[in-house]
Amino acid sequence: MSPTERPRSAAALIIGNELLTGKTEDANLTVLARLLFRLGVTLERAIFCRDEVEVIAAELDALRLKHDFVFTSGGVGPTHDDVTLQAIAKLFGCPLVRSRVIEKLMSEHYQSRLSPRHLRMADLPEGAELLLSNTSSWPLVKLENIFVLPGLPNIFQQKMAGLAEALGQDVPFLSRGVSTLCDEGEVGDLLERLSVDHPEVAIGSYPRWNDRQVSVLITFDSRSKAAVERAVDDLLAHLPADKVVDDNCARSVGG
Amino acid sequence: MSPTERPRSAAALIIGNELLTGKTEDANLTVLARLLFRLGVTLERAIFCRDEVEVIAAELDALRLKHDFVFTSGGVGPTHDDVTLQAIAKLFGCPLVRSRVIEKLMSEHYQSRLSPRHLRMADLPEGAELLLSNTSSWPLVKLENIFVLPGLPNIFQQKMAGLAEALGQDVPFLSRGVSTLCDEGEVGDLLERLSVDHPEVAIGSYPRWNDRQVSVLITFDSRSKAAVERAVDDLLAHLPADKVVDDNCARSVGG
Repeated sequence: MSPTERPRSAAALIIGNELLTGKTEDANLTVLARLLFRLGVTLERAIFCRDEVEVIAAELDALRLKHDFVFTSGGVGPTHDDVTLQAIAKLFGCPLVRSRVIEKLMSEHYQSRLSPRHLRMADLPEGAELLLSNTSSWPLVKLENIFVLPGLPNIFQQKMAGLAEALGQDVPFLSRGVSTLCDEGEVGDLLERLSVDHPEVAIGSYPRWNDRQVSVLITFDSRSKAAVERAVDDLLAHLPADKVVDDNCARSVGG
Repeated sequence: MSPTERPRSAAALIIGNELLTGKTEDANLTVLARLLFRLGVTLERAIFCRDEVEVIAAELDALRLKHDFVFTSGGVGPTHDDVTLQAIAKLFGCPLVRSRVIEKLMSEHYQSRLSPRHLRMADLPEGAELLLSNTSSWPLVKLENIFVLPGLPNIFQQKMAGLAEALGQDVPFLSRGVSTLCDEGEVGDLLERLSVDHPEVAIGSYPRWNDRQVSVLITFDSRSKAAVERAVDDLLAHLPADKVVDDNCARSVGG
């Protein structure tokens, strides 16, 4: 695929009352965002919502029609506040059906502790695909273009390798950062001109006030390395050399 | 106001490409969520979106009609990617007008470094209210039910005291946590029954795998302290005492 083709688009639905009451700080959005960036998929939107069947179903219905992929985080455990699978079943008007594959994995995992409650996690919306990967014995759950991911950050993170396999590598996004001692007021006009002259590059400006020193990190993102280089060269040609701290910051997005 | 009245509802729009590409991890949603919880306002939804005028205007138009309050984070600096005020002006079909109050504050702050670029931050949608508070010399910017907050986490945080003044104290939400050594499979049926018998309490179940030990934190949120106590007592009456690690966890939500 050439970088001039439109990248695939994605949205995330991050589910959980604990995030909207401030009990827990979400860690999954950034992990997902980094993966998608590296795979060349544009994450256009993320929505945080409450643990309510109707709400989740309505959010997913809107997202799945507008984006190539939708990723959910959370709500797949065995308790009353885990309603994501139920919401997806409602959305597609299908019943929840016991998955023998998941049932077997649970039975191996929980052994004598296995309870009917645990097995609720094996009840998937009818038609759910189970995607096996080389990196995990637990499959990814997918319905149409919706990938269902768990909310616990360590398990969410473990799912990323399998997700990368499932989505496939596209022309990746690249990011290069230029760290400067400028104030945003000083470079604003230049950045505005650059954003017009380099439309294939997303230019970001992020002030930082470390060590009581004014500084701005300017980032250049694109799927075209040549376009990023051209935009950075254009910036550097118009900045005093003593204002540039680092013209190739390790913006190892996605690592 | 009595706890039986419907709490006021809110939504947040967190703006910035850096959050959806994984360059930066958001810190503002949790800060806002904690404040609103403490004030007795329900944060129902948060949306993360990109730095695009049309996108921001459309998101805000949907949110402002469904919630009592909308809070934006980000996009109010002086560079080309700061387009929140422009998006609000577009939404309300009004021009951006130079605020003499903000202009004066900027001029005092930047002194000889003040540039026309900086002054773009003083261009507010016509009709914007400036809310002065006892805690800051910089006013809060508000249009109808939309509060415009900056994205930089330290400045965002500084705005919370003024925001609390502007919103006013309602009957606060309270949260009490019970830390147990149970597995979710063990307590799932009990929690489901409690959620039915105590409908005025939002019950959450959060597994934790610290120290290789299975444990579940169960949280009880409500605007009624008596209802929280009743639900916790009901839980404790049905759990073996040796499974309860702490029946009054310091869930100091909002501090």
